[in-house]
Amino acid sequence: MPESFAVTERTRVMREANRAVYDRETIYKILDEGFVCHVGFAVEGQPYVIPTMFARVQDAIYFHGSAASRMLRGASGGLPVCVTVTLLDGLILARSVFNHSMNYRSVVALGNAALISGPEEKLEALHAFTEKLIPGRWQDARQPTEQELKATSILKLPLTEVSAKVRTGGVEDDAADYALSVWAGIIPLRMVADAPLRDERCDPAIPTPAYAARYHR
Amino acid sequence: MPESFAVTERTRVMREANRAVYDRETIYKILDEGFVCHVGFAVEGQPYVIPTMFARVQDAIYFHGSAASRMLRGASGGLPVCVTVTLLDGLILARSVFNHSMNYRSVVALGNAALISGPEEKLEALHAFTEKLIPGRWQDARQPTEQELKATSILKLPLTEVSAKVRTGGVEDDAADYALSVWAGIIPLRMVADAPLRDERCDPAIPTPAYAARYHR
Repeated sequence: MPESFAVTERTRVMREANRAVYDRETIYKILDEGFVCHVGFAVEGQPYVIPTMFARVQDAIYFHGSAASRMLRGASGGLPVCVTVTLLDGLILARSVFNHSMNYRSVVALGNAALISGPEEKLEALHAFTEKLIPGRWQDARQPTEQELKATSILKLPLTEVSAKVRTGGVEDDAADYALSVWAGIIPLRMVADAPLRDERCDPAIPTPAYAARYHR
Repeated sequence: MPESFAVTERTRVMREANRAVYDRETIYKILDEGFVCHVGFAVEGQPYVIPTMFARVQDAIYFHGSAASRMLRGASGGLPVCVTVTLLDGLILARSVFNHSMNYRSVVALGNAALISGPEEKLEALHAFTEKLIPGRWQDARQPTEQELKATSILKLPLTEVSAKVRTGGVEDDAADYALSVWAGIIPLRMVADAPLRDERCDPAIPTPAYAARYHR
């Protein structure tokens, strides 16, 4: 696989092109850190954007497809989708209102998504979802039955047309504004986990697994 | 305004309908807590989903529209969009892989978005963006100039066709699975702010404002 995604007319970042990233390693890292993706699809010209769980496996994204899969009935060749993953890293407090911004990392993947059908591929996708959220959980939990796999709608989007946009670093003010007596800086943001809450029907003799007791991203 | 949004064919929640919410107060609270929305629009059948800053003002959403506004050129009557806001509250570790889930709150708003043009309305939208992110910041920062307002593309989406989906509470396992010796529970998630980082060009004599020193959502 080439180290970067080829830029297409559809993935060329037009606005703030200096923030564009097409490097595969950076893009995969963003995808792997995100919990939720936003899947866009259109029905008779009306777009819909639905949040859902996802995981990257090699050069494809799997995502839960209950909402989008309704649209897939009768659609051969897959459903045109856009899958977007966004991570927020901080608020940028500039001296001017106009230059306020955010540090963020986002990935936009375009293409045709198709339902996967084989139980083995579904199992692989569920494994990826679970291990992505809570590494180590898969082997502890009760495995999916044949029935459950049948009831699971998962879509696959090959990662072929992909771009990212990344803002890092600090405040960027207009030259004249640096003389203003206004505090400026970054407020870093991150997602944290609080102490786990044991299900009230969970036997207290079962120890809290390390992946829950000391959960972190 | 009615207390709930009317359910339409397009906003009726089909999957897990017990999680559907149409209540205006709940929906506005989710919108006001979210930092970023995901805007979906379609170009020649291909959907695009772009993350961007937004704010609710009364019964409308304003969002930065640089990407979408390109699509608006020549489109009279506005651009069909879907604006989705998602908040993650926790991971649900069930005894079975199949019943793993997330606690979340998401809002989906459908309609036609249009560019706003008047400098007063743009100023109001920028005020809403800034005060939503950092209450108190607007009066401290240098106000937008006429030039800056001209350079700002903001779209407005009236909130008329809106639904939310909310999952709260704990683990929901199949009856037979409660006998399994598997730890089950919730890992709560939340976004936190770390200590602010002063811009290196910011005079140390300028005190860190309370909204940055003790930032919290």
